Amino acid sequence: MIRMSSLKSNIGTGVIGFGYWGPKLARNFANNPACNLVAVSDTSADRRQTAAELYPGVGVTSDYRQLISNPRVDAVAICTPVSSHFDLALACLRAGKHVIVEKPIANTTEQAARLIEEADRRGLVLIVDHTFLYTGAVRKIRELIEQGVLGDLYYYDSVRVNLGLFQHDVNVLWDLAVHDLSIMDHLTSRVPCAVSAVGANHIPGTTENIAYLTVFFEGNLIAHVGVNWLAPVKVRRTLIGGSKKMIVYDDLEPSEKVKVYDNGVTLGRPADRESAYRLRVGYRTGDMLAQNLDRTEALRNEVVNFVQCIHSGAKPISDGLAGLRVVRILQAASQSLAQRGRPVDLDHVRSASA
Amino acid sequence: MIRMSSLKSNIGTGVIGFGYWGPKLARNFANNPACNLVAVSDTSADRRQTAAELYPGVGVTSDYRQLISNPRVDAVAICTPVSSHFDLALACLRAGKHVIVEKPIANTTEQAARLIEEADRRGLVLIVDHTFLYTGAVRKIRELIEQGVLGDLYYYDSVRVNLGLFQHDVNVLWDLAVHDLSIMDHLTSRVPCAVSAVGANHIPGTTENIAYLTVFFEGNLIAHVGVNWLAPVKVRRTLIGGSKKMIVYDDLEPSEKVKVYDNGVTLGRPADRESAYRLRVGYRTGDMLAQNLDRTEALRNEVVNFVQCIHSGAKPISDGLAGLRVVRILQAASQSLAQRGRPVDLDHVRSASA
Amino acid sequence: MIRMSSLKSNIGTGVIGFGYWGPKLARNFANNPACNLVAVSDTSADRRQTAAELYPGVGVTSDYRQLISNPRVDAVAICTPVSSHFDLALACLRAGKHVIVEKPIANTTEQAARLIEEADRRGLVLIVDHTFLYTGAVRKIRELIEQGVLGDLYYYDSVRVNLGLFQHDVNVLWDLAVHDLSIMDHLTSRVPCAVSAVGANHIPGTTENIAYLTVFFEGNLIAHVGVNWLAPVKVRRTLIGGSKKMIVYDDLEPSEKVKVYDNGVTLGRPADRESAYRLRVGYRTGDMLAQNLDRTEALRNEVVNFVQCIHSGAKPISDGLAGLRVVRILQAASQSLAQRGRPVDLDHVRSASA
Amino acid sequence: MIRMSSLKSNIGTGVIGFGYWGPKLARNFANNPACNLVAVSDTSADRRQTAAELYPGVGVTSDYRQLISNPRVDAVAICTPVSSHFDLALACLRAGKHVIVEKPIANTTEQAARLIEEADRRGLVLIVDHTFLYTGAVRKIRELIEQGVLGDLYYYDSVRVNLGLFQHDVNVLWDLAVHDLSIMDHLTSRVPCAVSAVGANHIPGTTENIAYLTVFFEGNLIAHVGVNWLAPVKVRRTLIGGSKKMIVYDDLEPSEKVKVYDNGVTLGRPADRESAYRLRVGYRTGDMLAQNLDRTEALRNEVVNFVQCIHSGAKPISDGLAGLRVVRILQAASQSLAQRGRPVDLDHVRSASA
Repeated sequence: MIRMSSLKSNIGTGVIGFGYWGPKLARNFANNPACNLVAVSDTSADRRQTAAELYPGVGVTSDYRQLISNPRVDAVAICTPVSSHFDLALACLRAGKHVIVEKPIANTTEQAARLIEEADRRGLVLIVDHTFLYTGAVRKIRELIEQGVLGDLYYYDSVRVNLGLFQHDVNVLWDLAVHDLSIMDHLTSRVPCAVSAVGANHIPGTTENIAYLTVFFEGNLIAHVGVNWLAPVKVRRTLIGGSKKMIVYDDLEPSEKVKVYDNGVTLGRPADRESAYRLRVGYRTGDMLAQNLDRTEALRNEVVNFVQCIHSGAKPISDGLAGLRVVRILQAASQSLAQRGRPVDLDHVRSASA
Repeated sequence: MIRMSSLKSNIGTGVIGFGYWGPKLARNFANNPACNLVAVSDTSADRRQTAAELYPGVGVTSDYRQLISNPRVDAVAICTPVSSHFDLALACLRAGKHVIVEKPIANTTEQAARLIEEADRRGLVLIVDHTFLYTGAVRKIRELIEQGVLGDLYYYDSVRVNLGLFQHDVNVLWDLAVHDLSIMDHLTSRVPCAVSAVGANHIPGTTENIAYLTVFFEGNLIAHVGVNWLAPVKVRRTLIGGSKKMIVYDDLEPSEKVKVYDNGVTLGRPADRESAYRLRVGYRTGDMLAQNLDRTEALRNEVVNFVQCIHSGAKPISDGLAGLRVVRILQAASQSLAQRGRPVDLDHVRSASA
Repeated sequence: MIRMSSLKSNIGTGVIGFGYWGPKLARNFANNPACNLVAVSDTSADRRQTAAELYPGVGVTSDYRQLISNPRVDAVAICTPVSSHFDLALACLRAGKHVIVEKPIANTTEQAARLIEEADRRGLVLIVDHTFLYTGAVRKIRELIEQGVLGDLYYYDSVRVNLGLFQHDVNVLWDLAVHDLSIMDHLTSRVPCAVSAVGANHIPGTTENIAYLTVFFEGNLIAHVGVNWLAPVKVRRTLIGGSKKMIVYDDLEPSEKVKVYDNGVTLGRPADRESAYRLRVGYRTGDMLAQNLDRTEALRNEVVNFVQCIHSGAKPISDGLAGLRVVRILQAASQSLAQRGRPVDLDHVRSASA
Repeated sequence: MIRMSSLKSNIGTGVIGFGYWGPKLARNFANNPACNLVAVSDTSADRRQTAAELYPGVGVTSDYRQLISNPRVDAVAICTPVSSHFDLALACLRAGKHVIVEKPIANTTEQAARLIEEADRRGLVLIVDHTFLYTGAVRKIRELIEQGVLGDLYYYDSVRVNLGLFQHDVNVLWDLAVHDLSIMDHLTSRVPCAVSAVGANHIPGTTENIAYLTVFFEGNLIAHVGVNWLAPVKVRRTLIGGSKKMIVYDDLEPSEKVKVYDNGVTLGRPADRESAYRLRVGYRTGDMLAQNLDRTEALRNEVVNFVQCIHSGAKPISDGLAGLRVVRILQAASQSLAQRGRPVDLDHVRSASA
């Protein structure tokens, strides 16, 4: 677990948007000894009432501008629909607030770049809420990759499907695949080169509810993500293949989320003409190890990271650039999706919005 | 179970190729009361010995031409590498033999068409071994779709991965995705329009060991198949989504392979401006039913179908045209794969070999 | 779901014991529109502080007598160690309060009978917190049994194991098997006749941490429960066998908790002397159905039932007598356990405490 | 894997009983280079025909005496109903044949002792077919226990249930629990002291179809086995608890059959009076390791062991004494079962038959 800094000077925090994710940020701000939850804003009367009941001492408002202009608010979490991220984050930064913005950071790389610039110029912390980076599971996987346990990375293959919740302003890639893109971005420093995406829309008046995204990295590393809002069952399973070992990461497993398999292939030469029928690829099946994982809530770790960066000026684990890199892929994916998988070079992503 | 016809006049059968699949066909020929297993050919001395020990009375030869010229052989199963399917099947048909050929039927649609033509002209039965069509699971799914239980088909999403076996003459799409293409072809009469495929090759001197294939059908039906020879675990799981119900078909489940979920979405209008944040898509979760399935071995049913068609002249469940349609998609997939997912229109598949 | 009664006159509620279970009762009292949470008592300063922070307007005290003497408290939930249930419940009833007492209701049947009597004489509601009776899963199973779907009940076989939490005043039977006994009591009206129990204690200074309990019912119905505080994994799985159908109830399944199998045996006569080797028992394997279950929190339903009984005088779903019947079996089990499984007749349970 | 001895002088083998298990022994005799399959006997004409077709050169007879008197038969496998084991094994030994007898070795300890004596006097090998001892899974578990990895053994808890097959001459304990008793006997040298068993019979004209067996060992080691011929699903799961580590052994898992959990408890003193509510038992949750297991067929290893013992005179892994010890517990279990769990001291097992 990331250590709590034992600070005296508390950070005043505000939360814009109190729907599904906002209450989680609010709770983690409230529980972090280095923070005070000062204000919450939401356009819904119901949700404002919920906030007021949960946090009696906190200022609740329907107008986010009031929250932003509150001098007791030092830092703001933006938990609103994607299309509003850029405007709200920019307003917060301009008002001198540190910002955590829900994923994805914005609709375009231009917007993401603008936010990074603004935060940098003002010396403010900008974190994008790539939550999974703060889980015990992803931290363990990164550790294994960095230590070379997996060998060369071959593939990252993720299935992230369930029934609902349809989003109204983004398609299923921007809603679900964003998690895998942020994880991949965190796990490897290899450069993504091109993207191919396909998908379909089955419910009138909505966006794509099923989609598949492939990212081609330098070398022959390939990442693939299948996402679906209309699946009969919930699946959160990622296979990660390396030249030495392979991982099954199942986020729905109650305890053994990350299993490391000492499986792979060995190459030999065909012994004779006969054996040339099946290639001389040998298969190695070894032990499987599921290490114990830190179970601290991811958002708790993320808020701790946020606080530490505010105090120390350190670079956050999920900074604005991570957010930008993920949006670049999502934009390319949107272009490819519209053309049934035509590959889009990541150096040439069009500037249009998602 | 498909009924055994109680015939007196036995069909003499031969098997070319006695590696992994050939012995299964041989056993099912031997066990079918309407067939006699007459001859086996294989280029490997070891495999010939195995055949001779298992079937003492059967003629075993290293030269398939000897098998084909044997007048007691009425029908031949071809269980050799893909690249030899066309030549062997053509030779058998020309010699007046009925033919079962392992999947895929051939390397190109031209070859497939040539075989269909030859069989037709000579009044011979030509079956491609799309084994899954003869399983209780796929037959139940087809029945449910035909009865309208699923409503409009939305998607077919399959994961078919394991460690090994690398094939030497075809990539993982031609080896594994062929199963899903044959199942899809059997489940729906909707016309496939275009294909996008991606993949990667991680083992020097081999073909693609991981690949993803998307087939776009008329309307908005989408099929997607992920295949992998380098996965740490074995997965055989297909999600099928319809407007009324959804299926999870897990071929590794010992008993409940096909689960039908009465899940879906209902569409409403946003009650007010507030609720417009999340679209008014309602989620319906109902019962799940796993019907008892016929557990007869698929190959047993297939051989029964073969025998019936030989006697009655009926159209086989998996005829040459089914084989051709699957090869057309595989050829398009190979083209797309070479171009990182660029979609290939199925009316314009190039004539080059796979 | 059990309907909320829309009452104007609110019931003042108090919670004694704010450890693991008390907060859940408090939350359900607070959320039920027919109740007010008025007071909480606990001997721990930490837990009192937690209660005070969660429920600012509620009276928090270290002395339960203060809570009991509070005239605004109409009903009390007792969430303390088992050994204190009797004294606290009796004090509450004497003070004219309705009572929910955590399971098991008391240490002995004599105590249970005394509480039932006291509540009856004063016209007060006494509920024992047999939580599972209020779950969608157990309610569905009871419905299936009452409708005759399962046929004659053959057996109830439950495994309820995990790592921890060791209780200091009761052994693992009184802590975990009590759930299954309350479920069995609810599912069938058949009379339990005798009990056999075995167990072992592996941690110095504690009670039995592993135990197995068998209850013999009239006819040949048998119930068996395995419980364990020292298991490497968590299991909550119950098999229920009937002459017509069988159930697998897995409480850890996220959605399909209750699966009904149309499996069983059919009896025939041996066809001939040869077949007498294996008895002519035929096996029938049919469909499996997992019906959709009400997912309302059990305690919510229980509090609704409590409120309804207070207003209407109706008999609670889990009344004092249910509590007494379960304690009778637990007492017999303790006797049997001390004698390595010697069967104890339920008409002759000794009066000694557990 | 146990090494094949490369012997020149082949052992002539015979199989009495060609029902479910006999063909497996026959196949393993036929495939072992140190054996010849010489003769098979069975009372069923159908089964004799099956044997004749599978093994054309082998003598097939309806009269086991013919097989026993065949001088080319050096060793016999007895694969008949339990009630015939003693007579057949004795006849074989008297005729100077080495014997593998299916489990359980006989109906009584007296019979088992008589067989052991006879084999010993004649210098013949007598193996009881405790198959699981020859699996990679049980061999790995034994290795872990012998190396002290698990610490002190606390419990062995096994569930072995499925639908069918009802046996006509023994109840479900003698059919299924015998496996767990043989495994326990192999895993620990601790002495079993007493037995308690319960069960029920739901199908007229049959024996107990559901039963539970507890074995009390020296110290506080406890073994418990639940067996059931009328379960809706198949379960083969064993939990083994030790003071240091714990095992989940699931024989239905395709690959990771043995999982070792670094879980357990730690004992501390209560910090203060408050914390005495819940005992100061700490819970330790660590890594889980599933080591790769030898996948050689158990019967193959068993036949190798049989051959080695015939040649070297070594003590078999599952010798007659192991068979006797298991029968002693089964006899005690039958007595206890008839008295609803009354414990039976293993030093005082009555001499009556099962």
